[in-house]
Amino acid sequence: MQDVYIIGVGQTPIGEWWDRSLSDLSTEALREAMADAGIEEQPDALFVSNMLAGQLSKQKHLGALISSAAGWDGIEALVIEAACGSGGAAVQAGITAIRSGAARMAAVVGVEKMTDGVHGETITAGLATAADAEYEVDQGASFVALNALVMARYMHEYGIDHEAFGGFSINAHANATNNPCAMFRSPITQRTYAKAPMIAPPVNLLDSSPVCDGAAALILASADGLRDLPQADPVRVLASASATDTISLQERRNLIELDGARLSTQRAYEQAGLAPQDIDLFEAHDAFSIMAALSLEAAGFAQPGRATMLAREGEITPDGRIPISTMGGLKARGHPVGATGVYQIVELVSQLRGQAGANQVLHAEIGMAQNIGGSGATVITHILSRG
Amino acid sequence: MQDVYIIGVGQTPIGEWWDRSLSDLSTEALREAMADAGIEEQPDALFVSNMLAGQLSKQKHLGALISSAAGWDGIEALVIEAACGSGGAAVQAGITAIRSGAARMAAVVGVEKMTDGVHGETITAGLATAADAEYEVDQGASFVALNALVMARYMHEYGIDHEAFGGFSINAHANATNNPCAMFRSPITQRTYAKAPMIAPPVNLLDSSPVCDGAAALILASADGLRDLPQADPVRVLASASATDTISLQERRNLIELDGARLSTQRAYEQAGLAPQDIDLFEAHDAFSIMAALSLEAAGFAQPGRATMLAREGEITPDGRIPISTMGGLKARGHPVGATGVYQIVELVSQLRGQAGANQVLHAEIGMAQNIGGSGATVITHILSRG
Repeated sequence: MQDVYIIGVGQTPIGEWWDRSLSDLSTEALREAMADAGIEEQPDALFVSNMLAGQLSKQKHLGALISSAAGWDGIEALVIEAACGSGGAAVQAGITAIRSGAARMAAVVGVEKMTDGVHGETITAGLATAADAEYEVDQGASFVALNALVMARYMHEYGIDHEAFGGFSINAHANATNNPCAMFRSPITQRTYAKAPMIAPPVNLLDSSPVCDGAAALILASADGLRDLPQADPVRVLASASATDTISLQERRNLIELDGARLSTQRAYEQAGLAPQDIDLFEAHDAFSIMAALSLEAAGFAQPGRATMLAREGEITPDGRIPISTMGGLKARGHPVGATGVYQIVELVSQLRGQAGANQVLHAEIGMAQNIGGSGATVITHILSRG
Repeated sequence: MQDVYIIGVGQTPIGEWWDRSLSDLSTEALREAMADAGIEEQPDALFVSNMLAGQLSKQKHLGALISSAAGWDGIEALVIEAACGSGGAAVQAGITAIRSGAARMAAVVGVEKMTDGVHGETITAGLATAADAEYEVDQGASFVALNALVMARYMHEYGIDHEAFGGFSINAHANATNNPCAMFRSPITQRTYAKAPMIAPPVNLLDSSPVCDGAAALILASADGLRDLPQADPVRVLASASATDTISLQERRNLIELDGARLSTQRAYEQAGLAPQDIDLFEAHDAFSIMAALSLEAAGFAQPGRATMLAREGEITPDGRIPISTMGGLKARGHPVGATGVYQIVELVSQLRGQAGANQVLHAEIGMAQNIGGSGATVITHILSRG
């Protein structure tokens, strides 16, 4: 099995890009990743992640669309989908292709244009396709509502106030102020958090990640492929693992523990031969504050019911014990759903290379990213190391 | 790199299944494939192919949906999409996972419920997402219209009459009469072909594959995995290769040659160390008669402009030189778009095992299947051998 390295990363700023297409965003991120890797040669394969283009842009078949736009004649290209976990799943598929020997060099690009769905209802309906259409959505649940159910239960079960979750959003926004690609670059306070408009009780606006557009890209290479390449600072893949849980909440063993995340993390730790205390930073899937909390707990960084304490004690900031959302996270960098998992890896690479600027985690040697599809139904975990 | 075997196959009959869900169809095909393989143990990974569930059933995230329904706790599961080539792409992803060592045993299921879109326009719009939304579909082209353009150009360029294409549909319907899973089990004649209602000139109803529902499944195993298994008659994967071409027709080098199919087939022949004359049967992507012709030419079974001669001379029937659509093909077995590529492999396996009944190709040792996404923009080719 070939060792896999990340030799180039690229990303577009996240925002509402009304005048740019799926192809525009994807090729910008890919070009930047190719330039970062210092290569011009066409990769052997392209893995695209996307969730909503079929519904919002009337465009499927993004493998062919983007390889056409990139001018990559004849390249193997396909799309990977796992709802909001699509990005992580495409990274995993790219890694698998290199490990198998099918590709020496592979490109991964995650892209989402959520603003193509100009009516709120279209986007809400699109996001709800991550949940069970028959047993959840047809019964009236939106995707935010499902997260609200979980958050309410968590607060009830552990006797935790809504304000205890503020630390996640405050940290995310603080970190995003230094990320030129982030959508929201203004800090927030506990007061603004507490006064934010309610979306679906107890989830308020500042518990939620935004609707936005963006693309992020990686170039992966095998150890063999790496030898001929100029990239001085490759990042190594120590683990790439995923797991599923039941798609609908009512079938879960426990509504407030993410079994899929626990299993996915466990598999990743096993692959890497590591434990939670070896991880220097963690790009968590903070699509909602409650998901940041559950993800920290499932990954072994906090006991069940204790994740908000980490935030309160300053342990999740870039100089804390387990920094999360170091470039703004889904909350403040933005969450272009099918692209998010690739953004997480791009940011992890910048930390491991020591290029994260004001948000640099000191002595960052080993980082973990976790990308979640649905309310924890698909979870993909990657562990990367410097060099 | 691990050798890969197909140790179990399953399929639902194809039809209009108004009362059965995506989960129902998928789990039926998976159960049959597991029973066929003689195993009960949960596979290591699940690869799902689907194109239209997001648009037609308001359901994405089929990896989690189907693994939940199958009761496969914690399994790695994701969705692969390449328009009508999704099935072949998922088979390739499954093979890659085994080759990489990431899985010892993997399940692949292709599923499509096209009848969930109850209005003709919804399905037409859904199928058009395989083409370029901005440069083709927004300009008024449906997916059938694009195929009609190609067919008209082919007829003009080579001076071929519409009636010359009849042999493809006649062969497909004749073969489907013996396939209990086929949608159309009545033979047709040259006369019925010629008199069929026009859809988009020159494509008529009997040039076209139907809107339908179905699911097909495979169980794949590595050589290591195979050792402990009871399956007496495994089929070996000799090649799994894909290629892309430009998504939109106007960018093609030549409108009536499928460069993506030629390249994909070439890569497959190279992987297998084989040439066209070594192939005993060919499951072609006959979504439209013109695609059957172009696919035969790109794969090296006929010179450009000569594919209809093969049909006229009886060379594509089960006892001909290069049998195609041996169980009815997309035309008569049916074309549940995202599932088709898996059906092709299921049928190839039944031929290579000698279980194809009245349609059995004598001495079938090596078979090829080719699955096409869009108008030839993504092409996935598999070559399999007996034992």
